[in-house]
Order: sequence, then C-alpha cells, then structure tokens
Amino acid sequence: MAASAAKPLSLPLALTLGEPAGIGPDITIAAWLRRRELNLPAFYLRGDEALIARRARSIGVDVRTAAVSPGEAAAAFTEALPIVETGERATAEPGKPDASSAPAALASIRQAVGDVRQGRAGAIVTNPIAKSVLYRAGFRHPGHTEFLAELAAENGRVPQPVMMLWSPRLAVVPVTIHVSLREALSQLTSELIVSTTRIVATELKSRFGIARPRIAISGLNPHAGEDGSLGHEEQTVIAPALKTLRGEGIEARGPLPADTMFHEAARKLYDCAVCMYHDQALIPIKTVAFDDAVNVTLGLPFIRTSPDHGTAFDIAGTGKANPSSLVAALKLAGRMAATQSR
Amino acid sequence: MAASAAKPLSLPLALTLGEPAGIGPDITIAAWLRRRELNLPAFYLRGDEALIARRARSIGVDVRTAAVSPGEAAAAFTEALPIVETGERATAEPGKPDASSAPAALASIRQAVGDVRQGRAGAIVTNPIAKSVLYRAGFRHPGHTEFLAELAAENGRVPQPVMMLWSPRLAVVPVTIHVSLREALSQLTSELIVSTTRIVATELKSRFGIARPRIAISGLNPHAGEDGSLGHEEQTVIAPALKTLRGEGIEARGPLPADTMFHEAARKLYDCAVCMYHDQALIPIKTVAFDDAVNVTLGLPFIRTSPDHGTAFDIAGTGKANPSSLVAALKLAGRMAATQSR
Repeated sequence: MAASAAKPLSLPLALTLGEPAGIGPDITIAAWLRRRELNLPAFYLRGDEALIARRARSIGVDVRTAAVSPGEAAAAFTEALPIVETGERATAEPGKPDASSAPAALASIRQAVGDVRQGRAGAIVTNPIAKSVLYRAGFRHPGHTEFLAELAAENGRVPQPVMMLWSPRLAVVPVTIHVSLREALSQLTSELIVSTTRIVATELKSRFGIARPRIAISGLNPHAGEDGSLGHEEQTVIAPALKTLRGEGIEARGPLPADTMFHEAARKLYDCAVCMYHDQALIPIKTVAFDDAVNVTLGLPFIRTSPDHGTAFDIAGTGKANPSSLVAALKLAGRMAATQSR
Repeated sequence: MAASAAKPLSLPLALTLGEPAGIGPDITIAAWLRRRELNLPAFYLRGDEALIARRARSIGVDVRTAAVSPGEAAAAFTEALPIVETGERATAEPGKPDASSAPAALASIRQAVGDVRQGRAGAIVTNPIAKSVLYRAGFRHPGHTEFLAELAAENGRVPQPVMMLWSPRLAVVPVTIHVSLREALSQLTSELIVSTTRIVATELKSRFGIARPRIAISGLNPHAGEDGSLGHEEQTVIAPALKTLRGEGIEARGPLPADTMFHEAARKLYDCAVCMYHDQALIPIKTVAFDDAVNVTLGLPFIRTSPDHGTAFDIAGTGKANPSSLVAALKLAGRMAATQSR
C-alpha cells in the first residue's frame, strides 16, 4: 500500500476509550468528524460501538461507525469511525461515573498496549480516565502512566516513564511530578535528573527526529540559587547531574534561573526544558499553549500521547467538549510513529 | 499650571542613580532621548551631572543636561535631562564597580525618598543597584526594597514592603520572595498571605484606580493540592487566609491550581495574582512580558517602581542597554502618581 503525503502512517493509532462517563467518547467523535479538514492520521477506538452510538445521539451528531480488526482500521477510517471491540460493555451515562464500566476502560488500555506491541498499531493515544472510579473497581496503580509502565514491563523490569508536555512552542519535562512541593524537594536527586534527562535526549532523537537535542535544565531555587545564597541544590544536586550528562555527550545547559527560561527568545535556544517540579514545568507551557498542549509519555517501549485534560464530567454528552488537545495528541503520535519507523 | 493629557503630572518623578558602573546611566540617557516619542512623564535624575556627561560620551550620544532643583525639573525636562545633584561624586567607570561610588548611590536613594516625602516629587523610580558593591561600603540592609522600607519608617515602625511585578498583560505578587524554595515553605503562613493581600487590595484601589479589585490566590502544590492528596498547605494555610480576606470584603479567589491560572483567558478574570513563592509568580510574568515588566513596591507611604533587571555590568557604557523596562517603570509611576492624586 502506497502511503500518501497526507497519511504517512501504514499503521493506525490505537485510541483508548478512557472513562466512559467522561468526555473521551465526545472528543473521539468530534475529532473523527473533522478528520479530513484537520488531516488526522488514521486511528481506531479500542472500545464499544454501542457506547459511541449512544453518545453521538446525546450530542446530536451523525457518526458512522465500523466494527473492525486493527488490520482493517486504516482502510475503514476515511468512511467510518473504526472501533475494535474490547468485549466489555461500557454502560455508564455521560457525567455519571459508574464502577461497572471500569473493566471496559481497563480492557481498552490493556488491549491497545497489546496491539502496539504486536505491531498492529503505530502508537497509543489515551483518553482521560477517572482514577477514583477505577480504584473503586480494584485498580491498584498510582495512575494511568504507571499502569502503562507496568504493562510495558519486560522480564519483570518496569521502565521509568517520563512525562513530557509538548506543544509547537515549548516542550517541558518535570523531574518530580504528582507529589507535594515538600515531597518534591525530598525526591529530587542527581540520579533522578540524570535518568530522566537521558530518556529525554534519547527520544528527542529517535521519536522527534532531532539529531542533536539541546536540553535546558532549570534551577530549583529563585535565580537558580544565586551562587548558593538562595539555596544549595543547584550546587549539590543539579550541577553534578549536568556534569554526568555532558560527560555522556548530551547537550544539557543549566542550572538556569526558571523565571527567565520561558520567554519567546529563550525558548528558541533549546528543544526541551527539564524542570525540577510540576508547576515549574506546567506553568509556562499552560501559559503559552493552554489548548493544544499534549501529554507524551517517554521511556516506554511504545509511543503514548494523551490530551492534557481530565474527564470533564460536567460537560460529557453535551457537545461542548473541545477536541483540540486530543487532535494535537493524535497528530503528534502520528508524527512520532512516522519518525520512529523511518 | 494646567495639566495636559500628555503630562498629567504636576510633580516630576525622582529617578535614582543606581549603581554608577552599571547600565543605570545608560538607560536614563536613552529613555530621556526618547521622551517625546514615548510620551514620558517628566523626571529628574538624583545624581551627578559629570557622570552623565562622561557616559553620554562613552555611548556616543549627545545629551543636554541641566542642573536643577526638584521644583525646576518638570519645566526643564523637555529641553534637557534634569539632574538634581546629590553632592556625592560617582567616579566608577562603566562595568568596573568601585566601592568609592557607593556613597553616591546611597545618597541618591535617600534624597529621592526625601524629595517624594516632602512633596517635591510624585514618585520614586529606582535604577538597579549592586548589593555586593554596597556591602563592601558598609551597607547593612538585605536589599534595595528593605532599605526603602527603613527610610519610610515612621515612629520606629517599618512598613511591610510588597513586591509586585506588573505588565499590561499580568500583575503578580509573590508572598515569599528572595529565599530558597525550602525556606519559602517555612516562611509561608496565613498571616503573611493576609497582610500581603490586604496591601495589594488597598493599593489596587488607591494607586491603580481599580474600584473593586479581583485577586486570584494560587495554591502551593500541584493541582492546588488536589483535595489534600498532593499536600496540605492549601487546607491548613491558604484557605484560612482566604476566609479572613473575604471576611474583610476583599474579592479574593483560590487556592487556584497555579498551572492553569496564567493563560490568556484565565488572566482576564483577575487584576492581580498573589502567589506563594518567587518562581510561581515570576515564571508566568517573564514568560508573557519579558521586556516590559515593571517591579513595583507596594506597602510604602510613597510610590516606587523599578525596571525589572540588574546592573548588566557587561554592557554598561556600550550603548547596547535596552531602556524598555525603565521606560515602562517611568510610565507606570506617572500613572500611579496621577491616580493617587486624583
């Protein structure tokens, strides 16, 4: 099959269902309906055809679906929203999360991982889940990403997932993530900065196609510690990490004062900013790319992107959900898969 | 004297010399030369006419100066850069800081404060100083702002200075400022949030002319603590402060997740963001307003603004210094003085 310029992928993307009561089904439908105008790569939903039919009626749109196998999805995509059945029913009503639908959400993730690992999908794009609903159904992982890392384990070795927020204007990676600021100060070590930045450098090459990635590493304290007068972690934790990284040939600069790293001219000097804690990374990217930032998980043996928002139960089924971030996640996954397979 | 629309101030602004070896003299000259095109409010330099003449020669520009008293400055401003002599010589060469010029820098600050307190100037605008140079000359204050607060003491009571970074797109106030992140966590109390926000609310009315200021208060932890699962300070420290503030009739909202507070649509919902630590406030404003952010000190019995950069010894005397931030500081001081005197 000859790949056209518009569809450089031979393999479709596997999109997970996410929380059935959230906006996942809504934005999946909305994105597919705009597939031509947005030039989206082919994807299929690992889900439940009946749920999509019900949600389309709630929103008041017409959507043709096709129950397919992963191998049939790319061909079906132009005329219908391809759905590969998980075999689990998702009956939760929009906005009314229901633990009985948890098996459908989890099966979708497991099977999408299976598809990509078996070479039947080019990448995984995940719709948002509701951890609290899954916990009630017995889910035991700290979050979506950790669950994916478990599914990616080989010989009992679980890979270190690295969270990147990506937009055309800025890409950031927080070294410590979903912990209190106090706990982030405890978790921060040279080893963690090194292992995180190594993964960033490797994947900027292999999956983003950047031959010589330039990585900016932030300080922790105001003014990057101002030579130790405003904190010592720059000298004791971050500088040693930079030395190790540069010794490995990684082009890493820092520790840079975080407040002057993110304006337009400064952003041109690097491909990705590695930051010490959640808000240091997420404040700048959500300030400059609120609608189209994509969550990318690096460090896994497969490509995974995700819209950078939650389940938005309050607007599920209303037609108000904005598919911009899912669209950006699909496009980026398509580009990354094409780059990786070059 | 009738005030024109272009020059609403009857009193000139008192601009301090700053560090004589830094770019203060350069940007002072550059701003005055563009006074007409930028419609600057009248100001005078509390300084040393000979230093300005030497610096103009270094830069290679022609500037007419006039040694005046504060009362003569506004009238002189259109035709010459008005200079009110401090009586201290500033002999340091550009880029070569020299403790012998510290008395000139300090006299300029003291006399500018004297001028504004005696009703001879409408506000103070301060050029950047070099603390390390002043320390060698016996300066004993933690910084520029604390020195100004000491000079503003009445009956032995030193006011609480509050640092605001202001731009046309965003205004932010950090509750804890130039301390390590670890120390910021220790310093953060409900009392400090309340006393800071009270000053912000008062001056947004009196000096910014906002009848009913809307203040956004950030959380400390990722996702504002996510109901306590990512840290407890939102519940134990910030929420009680908000309760007190609202009880006083101050329109304060929060604690808001810091990462989603600063995009363009979110910024329209408040007049100032009160943030818990330095980078939480300074990352967003320097991301969206790198060149024209102004440092404003609230809480003092007089108006003080300042460019938001340092002495830049490496480019002093070269003509490369960008006066944008000083220009913005002069304009804002002029507007604030006009608002306050209405």
